[in-house]
Amino acid sequence: MPNSKVEGSTYSLASFISNIPLNDIPSEILHESKRTLINVLAISLSGTQEIPSKALINWASTQNASPRATAIGGLRTSPSIAALLNGYLAHIQDFDDTHLPTILHPSAPVWPAVLALAELNRTNGKETLAAFALGAEVECRVAMSVYPWHYDHGWHITGTAGVFGAAAGGGRVLGLAPEVMNHCLAMAGTHASGLREALGSHAKAMHPARSAAIGLESAELALSGMTGPEDILGGRRGFWAIHSHEGHSESQLLDGFGQRWEMKNNGLKPFANGIVAHPLQDAIIQVRNTYGITSEQVESLTFRVNPLVVELMGRASPRTGFDGKFSYRHCVAVGLIDGAGGAFQFTDERVMDAEVIRLRSLISETIDPEVKEDSTHLTVKLKDGKAIELFIEHAIGTPENPMTDQDLEIKFMSLATEVMPKTQAQQLLDAAWSLDSAHNLESLMNLVSL
Amino acid sequence: MPNSKVEGSTYSLASFISNIPLNDIPSEILHESKRTLINVLAISLSGTQEIPSKALINWASTQNASPRATAIGGLRTSPSIAALLNGYLAHIQDFDDTHLPTILHPSAPVWPAVLALAELNRTNGKETLAAFALGAEVECRVAMSVYPWHYDHGWHITGTAGVFGAAAGGGRVLGLAPEVMNHCLAMAGTHASGLREALGSHAKAMHPARSAAIGLESAELALSGMTGPEDILGGRRGFWAIHSHEGHSESQLLDGFGQRWEMKNNGLKPFANGIVAHPLQDAIIQVRNTYGITSEQVESLTFRVNPLVVELMGRASPRTGFDGKFSYRHCVAVGLIDGAGGAFQFTDERVMDAEVIRLRSLISETIDPEVKEDSTHLTVKLKDGKAIELFIEHAIGTPENPMTDQDLEIKFMSLATEVMPKTQAQQLLDAAWSLDSAHNLESLMNLVSL
Repeated sequence: MPNSKVEGSTYSLASFISNIPLNDIPSEILHESKRTLINVLAISLSGTQEIPSKALINWASTQNASPRATAIGGLRTSPSIAALLNGYLAHIQDFDDTHLPTILHPSAPVWPAVLALAELNRTNGKETLAAFALGAEVECRVAMSVYPWHYDHGWHITGTAGVFGAAAGGGRVLGLAPEVMNHCLAMAGTHASGLREALGSHAKAMHPARSAAIGLESAELALSGMTGPEDILGGRRGFWAIHSHEGHSESQLLDGFGQRWEMKNNGLKPFANGIVAHPLQDAIIQVRNTYGITSEQVESLTFRVNPLVVELMGRASPRTGFDGKFSYRHCVAVGLIDGAGGAFQFTDERVMDAEVIRLRSLISETIDPEVKEDSTHLTVKLKDGKAIELFIEHAIGTPENPMTDQDLEIKFMSLATEVMPKTQAQQLLDAAWSLDSAHNLESLMNLVSL
Repeated sequence: MPNSKVEGSTYSLASFISNIPLNDIPSEILHESKRTLINVLAISLSGTQEIPSKALINWASTQNASPRATAIGGLRTSPSIAALLNGYLAHIQDFDDTHLPTILHPSAPVWPAVLALAELNRTNGKETLAAFALGAEVECRVAMSVYPWHYDHGWHITGTAGVFGAAAGGGRVLGLAPEVMNHCLAMAGTHASGLREALGSHAKAMHPARSAAIGLESAELALSGMTGPEDILGGRRGFWAIHSHEGHSESQLLDGFGQRWEMKNNGLKPFANGIVAHPLQDAIIQVRNTYGITSEQVESLTFRVNPLVVELMGRASPRTGFDGKFSYRHCVAVGLIDGAGGAFQFTDERVMDAEVIRLRSLISETIDPEVKEDSTHLTVKLKDGKAIELFIEHAIGTPENPMTDQDLEIKFMSLATEVMPKTQAQQLLDAAWSLDSAHNLESLMNLVSL
């Protein structure tokens, strides 16, 4: 109803997003936002080479939309299609960041919406980082407000919470006032979607892709006067009631907004596979690099692990690169041989390599519920009779043991140089690190072309 | 997994859609499909004049996609954007068809996906009608498979079931083989969305709009090789488990597919408001036309009604055109004065008209749970002491008392001539009636420009 006072949880959230001054966002949060961007650029560049990515890029290019925004890889297209494509690329390799309290992947829905609108509107770098930080904060808090009921029920939270984050980030770029932001969130939230049934298929990465595009479009349409329901989160038939009927928490959504930041609970992945195997990979790569151990020297490798490692990544004899991502033994074998866990380690060829197969057969585990999800104990037995023991308390990439900026640079250069010359990759990395002082995104986005 | 046999409810459905020969679709179903198209064209043309429609049309035109499909009103754009726009226009006035067993509106998500792909592929008219018939059948059966649990839980079934129908209809136009159709349904179904919370806002019509576009894109992407999960309906974390956890029926989805057709349970609306007031409007318009009664002669009007009439349409003193749609008294008053219940009867001006307001105050009801939803008893008392009684057993527009082709033509011409010359409207109507013999959609789509 026009001019009536709007109330409700969604409006409170919208007010936060609209009203927080740029300078109230801590510099460490803006820095973390920049790190997530560098991570997204790296994995998206590499992601352009995946078969379904190529299909989607080809589809996007046939739309022939007037060139107002840039997709990673270089296609100039509409903001909506750029957001769709970039959302896909950021998630297709399962190599994106993870908000550990909710297993949400914050960047894939939010960065594409923010990038496309910021590029179009010539938003400066610092405002762009702030818009991402707020979009990610909204997304994580929406996720926390329905976790674990919503996730346990079967929703892919990166899609469902993601559309709120993309709308919030996109709406912040457009400078929406609280009432308009409220409609933006409403128009986006009614389309929250993504079923966990799609995990393991090409369709999974469409979840953040569509969330990015719908969030962006909701911001544009709200600005043009379209409206949605008054309280999409708390309304009688709103997101909480329908998508999380077993429970929800308003305080997780709103309490301390702008004071505590969920980006602090976000981790960048050093390895392109499920996070539960990361402690094992961290351990074996440390053994490799510290002691110079090679696969020929190994008699056996035994890990003491949390039960989830076997439940989620127990495939013993993977036959495809994709299978390999669900085999902790494969992750460990290539970790020892290659010292890495990137796209190259999950090709069909690498999974069927004779030495990798031989080494996988020497790996076993002891299941121990006492071992935390980010921990492991490794025992290496060597053919010469020696043994090495290693305990990983917090795997690399967790908030307690984050990838350093230098680790991230190595990841970036490794992935970016799969598809672009080293000089261009270095220029892109430099442009991203100096984003806070950029007047607009032009230089950055010019460098993502292949 | 490649080459393994696909099984499951979704695959059975996909096989039906792909394999039914055109000639096995009864001619009466193709005729009913044509009637729904004429209805969609009429309400979409009128729908272009709504304020949020204009915002969306403006947004679409700024996308500047290469012109491969036509939106009602004339914008030439991409198939996706044409589907989005046409889905919006078909639903914005709440004047579209209704599948009575599920309160689903079949045409709004399906026709836009089918039209855009058929136009692009120069599909002939009869194949186009068949693709709609199959898309609508899938949509109605998906809806029936989760009704009433899914709807009662709070989902707007036109959005959620609609995306399956749009994918099925679009996929049929593209001639997808069963395995590809299965992926098409999967990629669409994981994005099933639309909360009833959005009813009463501009966002409601975005539900079929997005379903149309996502269904269409899923068909295109499936054809290009993208895949989704194997059984999006019946999988452990699929549509049935997540969107209808309280119950579902596989037999409603599959039994007798191709033998019995849900289009027979679909009704075209004669009036642009909630269906529960239609018996009252039918009654008063019959009294007006049969006895030549005018508002000046009336002492009082009393209806015996089903309780839903007051529950859903009990607003006594509407102040806006939109309010008027939720006031059965307003619907009856304009029914007597104007003999109609179209867009003109639901403007802000009409709702505040002095004679309409006066007449509304003479209308009352007796609630009677014995009166069926499609029935009413009307008692008209005249100032001269005379009285008229009328019983409506099945309101006009229900399957038991459908709008005749002639009624539909009157509705079409009334709505189309709001925005286009009578000669063009007549040509468009003729083109639609003769669609079965058209070699492609070119003539038809050329005539929807304003």
